[in-house]
Amino acid sequence: MNDNPHSTPDPGRCERQGFPEVIYCQNKTASQVADNLQALAAANGAAFGTRLDPSKADEVLATLPKATYDPEARTIAFGTLPQASGPSVAVITAGTSDIPVAAEAAATLAFLGHPTRRIHDVGVAGVHRLFERMEEIRQAAVVIVIAGMEGALPSVVGGLVGAPVIAVPTSVGYGAAFEGVAALLGMLNSCASGLTVVNIDNGFGAALAAHRILQSHHCP
Amino acid sequence: MNDNPHSTPDPGRCERQGFPEVIYCQNKTASQVADNLQALAAANGAAFGTRLDPSKADEVLATLPKATYDPEARTIAFGTLPQASGPSVAVITAGTSDIPVAAEAAATLAFLGHPTRRIHDVGVAGVHRLFERMEEIRQAAVVIVIAGMEGALPSVVGGLVGAPVIAVPTSVGYGAAFEGVAALLGMLNSCASGLTVVNIDNGFGAALAAHRILQSHHCP
Amino acid sequence: MNDNPHSTPDPGRCERQGFPEVIYCQNKTASQVADNLQALAAANGAAFGTRLDPSKADEVLATLPKATYDPEARTIAFGTLPQASGPSVAVITAGTSDIPVAAEAAATLAFLGHPTRRIHDVGVAGVHRLFERMEEIRQAAVVIVIAGMEGALPSVVGGLVGAPVIAVPTSVGYGAAFEGVAALLGMLNSCASGLTVVNIDNGFGAALAAHRILQSHHCP
Amino acid sequence: MNDNPHSTPDPGRCERQGFPEVIYCQNKTASQVADNLQALAAANGAAFGTRLDPSKADEVLATLPKATYDPEARTIAFGTLPQASGPSVAVITAGTSDIPVAAEAAATLAFLGHPTRRIHDVGVAGVHRLFERMEEIRQAAVVIVIAGMEGALPSVVGGLVGAPVIAVPTSVGYGAAFEGVAALLGMLNSCASGLTVVNIDNGFGAALAAHRILQSHHCP
Amino acid sequence: MNDNPHSTPDPGRCERQGFPEVIYCQNKTASQVADNLQALAAANGAAFGTRLDPSKADEVLATLPKATYDPEARTIAFGTLPQASGPSVAVITAGTSDIPVAAEAAATLAFLGHPTRRIHDVGVAGVHRLFERMEEIRQAAVVIVIAGMEGALPSVVGGLVGAPVIAVPTSVGYGAAFEGVAALLGMLNSCASGLTVVNIDNGFGAALAAHRILQSHHCP
Amino acid sequence: MNDNPHSTPDPGRCERQGFPEVIYCQNKTASQVADNLQALAAANGAAFGTRLDPSKADEVLATLPKATYDPEARTIAFGTLPQASGPSVAVITAGTSDIPVAAEAAATLAFLGHPTRRIHDVGVAGVHRLFERMEEIRQAAVVIVIAGMEGALPSVVGGLVGAPVIAVPTSVGYGAAFEGVAALLGMLNSCASGLTVVNIDNGFGAALAAHRILQSHHCP
Amino acid sequence: MNDNPHSTPDPGRCERQGFPEVIYCQNKTASQVADNLQALAAANGAAFGTRLDPSKADEVLATLPKATYDPEARTIAFGTLPQASGPSVAVITAGTSDIPVAAEAAATLAFLGHPTRRIHDVGVAGVHRLFERMEEIRQAAVVIVIAGMEGALPSVVGGLVGAPVIAVPTSVGYGAAFEGVAALLGMLNSCASGLTVVNIDNGFGAALAAHRILQSHHCP
Amino acid sequence: MNDNPHSTPDPGRCERQGFPEVIYCQNKTASQVADNLQALAAANGAAFGTRLDPSKADEVLATLPKATYDPEARTIAFGTLPQASGPSVAVITAGTSDIPVAAEAAATLAFLGHPTRRIHDVGVAGVHRLFERMEEIRQAAVVIVIAGMEGALPSVVGGLVGAPVIAVPTSVGYGAAFEGVAALLGMLNSCASGLTVVNIDNGFGAALAAHRILQSHHCP
Repeated sequence: MNDNPHSTPDPGRCERQGFPEVIYCQNKTASQVADNLQALAAANGAAFGTRLDPSKADEVLATLPKATYDPEARTIAFGTLPQASGPSVAVITAGTSDIPVAAEAAATLAFLGHPTRRIHDVGVAGVHRLFERMEEIRQAAVVIVIAGMEGALPSVVGGLVGAPVIAVPTSVGYGAAFEGVAALLGMLNSCASGLTVVNIDNGFGAALAAHRILQSHHCP
Repeated sequence: MNDNPHSTPDPGRCERQGFPEVIYCQNKTASQVADNLQALAAANGAAFGTRLDPSKADEVLATLPKATYDPEARTIAFGTLPQASGPSVAVITAGTSDIPVAAEAAATLAFLGHPTRRIHDVGVAGVHRLFERMEEIRQAAVVIVIAGMEGALPSVVGGLVGAPVIAVPTSVGYGAAFEGVAALLGMLNSCASGLTVVNIDNGFGAALAAHRILQSHHCP
Repeated sequence: MNDNPHSTPDPGRCERQGFPEVIYCQNKTASQVADNLQALAAANGAAFGTRLDPSKADEVLATLPKATYDPEARTIAFGTLPQASGPSVAVITAGTSDIPVAAEAAATLAFLGHPTRRIHDVGVAGVHRLFERMEEIRQAAVVIVIAGMEGALPSVVGGLVGAPVIAVPTSVGYGAAFEGVAALLGMLNSCASGLTVVNIDNGFGAALAAHRILQSHHCP
Repeated sequence: MNDNPHSTPDPGRCERQGFPEVIYCQNKTASQVADNLQALAAANGAAFGTRLDPSKADEVLATLPKATYDPEARTIAFGTLPQASGPSVAVITAGTSDIPVAAEAAATLAFLGHPTRRIHDVGVAGVHRLFERMEEIRQAAVVIVIAGMEGALPSVVGGLVGAPVIAVPTSVGYGAAFEGVAALLGMLNSCASGLTVVNIDNGFGAALAAHRILQSHHCP
Repeated sequence: MNDNPHSTPDPGRCERQGFPEVIYCQNKTASQVADNLQALAAANGAAFGTRLDPSKADEVLATLPKATYDPEARTIAFGTLPQASGPSVAVITAGTSDIPVAAEAAATLAFLGHPTRRIHDVGVAGVHRLFERMEEIRQAAVVIVIAGMEGALPSVVGGLVGAPVIAVPTSVGYGAAFEGVAALLGMLNSCASGLTVVNIDNGFGAALAAHRILQSHHCP
Repeated sequence: MNDNPHSTPDPGRCERQGFPEVIYCQNKTASQVADNLQALAAANGAAFGTRLDPSKADEVLATLPKATYDPEARTIAFGTLPQASGPSVAVITAGTSDIPVAAEAAATLAFLGHPTRRIHDVGVAGVHRLFERMEEIRQAAVVIVIAGMEGALPSVVGGLVGAPVIAVPTSVGYGAAFEGVAALLGMLNSCASGLTVVNIDNGFGAALAAHRILQSHHCP
Repeated sequence: MNDNPHSTPDPGRCERQGFPEVIYCQNKTASQVADNLQALAAANGAAFGTRLDPSKADEVLATLPKATYDPEARTIAFGTLPQASGPSVAVITAGTSDIPVAAEAAATLAFLGHPTRRIHDVGVAGVHRLFERMEEIRQAAVVIVIAGMEGALPSVVGGLVGAPVIAVPTSVGYGAAFEGVAALLGMLNSCASGLTVVNIDNGFGAALAAHRILQSHHCP
Repeated sequence: MNDNPHSTPDPGRCERQGFPEVIYCQNKTASQVADNLQALAAANGAAFGTRLDPSKADEVLATLPKATYDPEARTIAFGTLPQASGPSVAVITAGTSDIPVAAEAAATLAFLGHPTRRIHDVGVAGVHRLFERMEEIRQAAVVIVIAGMEGALPSVVGGLVGAPVIAVPTSVGYGAAFEGVAALLGMLNSCASGLTVVNIDNGFGAALAAHRILQSHHCP
C-alpha cells in the first residue's frame, strides 16, 4: 500500500539509475500532477513534469506557486535545479516550427544539469545553413536533431559527425506527413549509420537519452 | 469490337499526346505482351514494355527474336529507336541498390530519344559525394532522383537546383522501410519546394514525366 | 550565429534556384511569420507565406499593414509582385469543394508571375464537362489537376494531353477517403503515364513544380 | 451432428436464397473440395468452386474426372449447368491484366445462368476506348467494372449509365497500389453516385451480386 | 465557360442516368449550396443535398426559405418531391447509434420516390431480434443493412435473403473500430455471398445504389 | 414491431446469458439513453450505461433523477444494485493516466456484484512497484491489467500468475502510440501465454469478460 | 549462467503458474527445439511445441523419435500426456478453412488435460447451422470461436451463451482480409459483451486462456 | 567521375566520423559487394558487410577467399580486424528466436573493436530470468536489448539501469506482430525514460550507435 492511491511514485529511481522520475502530465489531473511534484521533490530535491497544458499549469501553480512553468516547452519544474556543467548537447531543428520540441529537450537537459547549444531552422532544403554551423555542432558530446515533414536532417548530420545522434521526429507537416509518421519512418531508415530514434515530438526522451550517454561518460 | 480481344491498343496516343503507349508487362502473359508489342510497333515504328521478368522475356523473344531485352532494367524494346538528342536528363541514385530503377528510367528515356547522365551512390550519408557531382547535375534540364530507405536525397538536390526534380522512391530497405513507403512519404513531405513524386520503383513514370516536360520545352 | 534566432532565412535561394524561399506559416507564431516576411522581402523585393489561418493573419497584418491576405487561399503576400507573363498554367478541380487548394496554387503562381486559367468542378462523374473545356486546357504549358475522393480526374486528363500534368490530391471526402489518402494513392497509381504527384492539399507545391518547369522552359 | 465432420454443407441455400452455396477452395484440401462438390451437386444438381489452384485442381479432377476446371478463372464446375438466358451482364476491365478476375466473374455468371458480354482494356488512360463500347454497355442490365491501379474506370462508367454498377478492385499494380488497396479506396470514394464495391479480386462476389439483382428483377 | 464559375452543374444527368445530380454540401459554402440547389431544381423540378451541417443549413434556408432541412439525416430538399411508389427498400440498423445514417438513406430514397421500411437495433448480439423482423425484410426488393463496430449484421442478413443486400459501415464505435474501418473490412470480407458495400456512413450512396437496381427493375 | 422504435431492447439477455444488456451511450441521444435505462430497469431491476459524457448525463439525470452518474468512469446506474460477493477481481493500471478505464471496469464489476481490488501506477519502468503488490494480486480470481503506451504490464503480470489475465490497452500516450494501437498490438503479441485482450479503453468489456469467467466459476 | 546458452528455460513456470512453458518453434532451429523439449520434459514430465513446420519436425523427430508430431496442428508433444478430465471446451470454426487453427487449440488443450468438443463450418452465412449445435455448445465451460474473413461468428455465439468466449481471428481470406486483420478488428469491436480476443491464428493462446479459466475454476 | 561507376565509396568516413563505411549487401550483386569490400579495405585496412545471403556469400568468397562469412549474423569481414578492448556492450535477447539479430550486432561490435557480453532468452514472460543476469548487465557501458513480439524487454531493462539502452525490435512473431511493427511501436512508446530505438532487425545499427557512444566516451 502507499499513501497516494492514484500514483505509486518511484523515489529510488535516482539512486538506481542516476536520474529521477519525471511526471508525464498529459492525462493526469492538476491535483495528481501537484501531488507527484511534491512527492518527488521531497525525495530528490527537485521535480519536473512534461506535456503540461497552460490551463492545467495555472491550476498546478495555484497549489505550488514556487513551481516554474515554461510555456514554450510546456514543462514545469519545482525545487532547486542544478548548475549546468560538463560536455554540452547540441539541439538542432530543421525548421522554426520544430522549436517547441527543442524547447522541451532543452528544459529537460537544464533540469538534469547539462549545458545546451540550440541551433534552429537549418533543414536540408538549404543545406548550406547547416554547414555554417558545423563547427559548433562538432563541439557537442551528443547531438539531438529534430525534424518534421520528411525528417531528413538527422541523416545529413549523422553523416558528418561521429558523436551519438538522437533523432526526434515531429508532427510538423500536413497531409501525408501523418502527424509525424513520415519523419519517424525516415529516421528509422536513415542511410547514416548508428542513428537512434525516439517517439514523435519526444524532446524529453531525447534529452534523457543524452543524459544516459553523458552519465556513462563520467562514471563507469 | 476489336481484333485483339484481350487488349484494346491505343495507337493514336502518339499523335494525341506526343508519346506512344507503353506496355506494362507484369500481369500479362508472354503472348499478350508479344501481341501488343507487334500492334504498337506496327502503328508507331517502335514499341516498348516494362516490368518484364527474365523468364517471360525468353518466351517473348522466342516469338519476336528482333526485340531487345535489358535484364537490368527489365524492359523490352522492339522496332527502330530514335537517336538521342536535345537537353539531357540527370538520373541520380542515392545508393548502388537503386540502380535497377535508374536503369528502367534510362531505358525509357532512350526509347523516347533523350540523352541521359547517370550518377550513382551519392546519398546523404556522405553528402560531399553529391557536391562533387553538382556541376554535371546543373547541366541537366530535368533531374530524376531515386532513393530508397529514408528517401532524403531529393530534398537535398531539390534545394540546390532550379530545374524540375522528379523524385522516385524505391523499395530498397527493410523493416520500417515498408517496401518503399518510408521513402515515398519522405518525398511527398519534402521541405524542398516544388518536388514531384511518382510511385515506388516507378522509373518508367519518372522518365515519361521528364519527357512531358522536355516536349513542352520544345513545342508550345 | 544569425540575428534572427528562431529562423535561418535563405535569401540566396532566388539566385541559386530561380525562386525565393516561401514561408510555411502553419506551425509558426504570428511574430515569426512577420519577421520572416520582412527578412525575405528585404532580400527579394517580395515575400509570400502559405497556410496562414485568418486569426493569425490578423495579427500579422497588425504588424505589416501593407501585406495582403487571401482568405480563400490562406496565403499572404508582402512587397511588389510581378506582372504575369509567359505560358499559362491550367488549374483544374474535380469538384467545387477542391477550390481552396486551387486558390493556393493560383496565388502562388501569381506570386511567381505566371498567368493561370482556372476550371472548376469537371470531375469524372460527368466526364462531358471536362471535354467541353479541353480546348482551353490544351493551350496550357503545364496542367495542375486537383481532386479529392477517388482522385480520378488526373488520370483522364493525363490521357488527353501531352503537357506535364501535376496531380494534387485533396482531403475532400469522408470515411475511407482517409483525409486524402485515397486520392493520393489513386494518383500515384494512375494508369496514365508520366503524371507526377505532390502532397495532399499541396497547391503551393504544385505551383512551384510548374514554376520549375516553366523556368527550365525559358532558361537552360 | 453431420456425416462430414470437416464441413457443414448448406444444401437449403438454393431454396432459401435462390442460389446455391459455392465452395471457396483456397484454404481447403483437395479432398475437402471434392467432398463438398459432391455433397452440393447431390443436393442442387450442380456445384461450383472458386480460387482453386491448378495443382490442387489436378488432385480434385483425379477424384471427380467429370468436373471441369477453368484455369484462367481458377474455378471448377461439377454437374449440369444451366443454359444462359435473361438480361445480360457487362463485364468490363480497365486493363488486360485484370482478365483473370473478369474470368472468375464470367464463370460464376455462367454457372448461375446469365449471359455475359466481356469488354477488356478500356481504362481511363485512353478514355475514347470506353466510349466506343458504350452502346454495348448500355444494353446490359448490370455492369461489373474491374480495375486495378487507381481503379478509376468505375467512376467514369458510373457517370454514364443508370444501371447498377458493381466495382471490383484488383491487385494489379505495384508499389503504392498496395495489392489492390488503392483501387479499393478509389472505388469506395467514387464521385459517381450509387456504385457498390466488393472485395479485392472478388469476381465471384460481383457476379453473385449481379445475380441477386437479376433475380429480384424476375421474381418479387 | 459557364455562368456559375465555382461549379459546373450536370443538369443532363437525369436524362442520361435516370437520377439527378445530388449536392455534396460538406466542403461547400452556404452560397455555393444555394446556387446549386437552385440550378438543379430549375433543370429537374427538385434538388437535394447531403451532409449539410445545421448551422450551414440555417444560412441556406435564409436564402431558400422553401427548402426543407432534415436535421437527423442532415439533408436538404428543394422543389417538388415525388410520391413514393413501387417496390420498397428495407433500411435496417444494427444499433440505435446507426440511425443518422439510416435517416440519410431514407431521405434519399424519399427524394427518389421509393417507399422505405425502417427497422432499428437488431444487431447480432441478440440475433433473435432480427428473426422477429424477417418477414418484413423478405418483402423488400432491396435490403440496406447499416452497422458500425464489427459490422456483422449484413453477413447474417445476407445469408437469409436472396434480394440484393447493400452493406453500409458506420463510424459508430471507438478504439480499434478506427472510425468505421473495422465495419468496412468486415463487410468487404463477408462470408455471405454477393453482398456489396459502400463507403463508411454513406447512407446516400446505398440509397442511390438501390435506386439503380429498382430503376433497372422497371425499365430495361 | 416494438413500442420503442429507435431501439429493440433485449430484456431476455439476463436469463439467456446471466447478465443484462448494458447501454452504450456514446452515439445515442439523452432521451434514447433514458428510454433504454427505464426499459431495462423495468425488466431486470437495474440498468447500466457506459461512455456517457457529463453534459449528456445532466440531461439524463433531469429525466431520471434517481440514476447515479460516476464522472470518473463516465457510467450511469439506475435501479437497485447487488451487494458485492464472491471471488474478487484485481484491476491494475500501469499508470495514473489509465485510471478512467479502471474506473469503468470497477463500476461495471460493481453493477454485476463482484468485489474489486484496484492497484494503480505499477508499470514496468519501475517493476519493483508491481512486486510489492503481488501478494494482493495473487488473491484475485481474475486479473484485469490496464496499460497505455507500450502496454507491457500484462506480459509481466501474465508471467507471474496462473489466473485469467484480461489485458486492456488504453489510448494514453502520444505520437507513435497511435491512440492505443501500440498497446493493443503489444498485448496481442504478448510472450506471456494465454492472455486475452479487449478493445482499446474497453474497461467495460474486460469487466464483463471477468463476469463470464466468475459466472462459469459458480454455475456449471 | 546456464548450460544451454541459446535459451533460458523456465522450468518453474509449472509451479508458479499451473502450466508449463511451451516452445514457440517458428524462428528456432531444429536443434534448439529438441534441446528445449528435452529440458522441459526433464523438469515437467512432458513438453510441447507449436508452429513447427513439417520439414523441421522431421529433423526434431530424428533426434527425439519418441516425440509425436501432429501435422494438421503443426504441434509436437514429448513425454507422458495427462488423461483429459474436467469441464470441456468447445472449439468452433466458422469455416472448413479455419480447421488448422482449431487443431492447434485442440492439441494444446489435450496437452493440458482438457476434454474438447470440436464443431466446424457453422459460420454466419448459414446461421441455422450454428443453432443446430447450440445445445452441445451450451454444455461447454469455455467456448473458443475461430473465424477468418469478417470474423462475425464470435459475436453471434457471444450473444447466445453466458460462458467465457475466446475469439480467435484467422488469416483465412484474401484482399481486404489483410491476413486476418479484418477478423481481428471485427472481434475487438464485437457488439456482444465480454468477448476476449487473442492474436491472429493463435489457437495455442486461446487454449491456454481456457486453461487459465478452468484452472481458476478448480483451485482458488 | 569515379573509377567504380556502380558505387561511390566514402573512404574518408573513418577520419571524418571515427568509423568506416559498412556495406549493405541486400540489394547489391555479388560483384558489387566484392568491389566495395576491396575498395574500402584498401582505404581502411578492413571492410565489413551486412545482410549477405549465404548463396551470394559463396559468390563473394569465390572472388575474395580471404574474407570471412558469419552465417548466423549474415555478415562478411575482409582484412585485419582489431583486438577488442575498452568498456563492454551487453547484447540481450528476449527470446532464442532473436539470436540472429544479436549475432549481427555482435559481429559489428567485433569489427569495431568492442568486447561484447551476450545474454539470451530472458524475456518478460519469466522476468526472474532477467534478474538473475542483472549484475552482468550493470557492468556494461551500453546495453542493446533485442526483442520481437510485444517488445517489452527494453522497458524493463530501461527501468533498471542508468546506462544508455538501445532497443532493437525484431520481426519475430506472427499475425498482429506485423513483421516487427508491434515491437517497434512498443519500444517507441516505452514508459522507461530515455530509451532509443533503431529499425526492425537492425542489429548493425544498434552496434554502431553503441560505437558512437563509446567513441564519445574516449575522445572528446
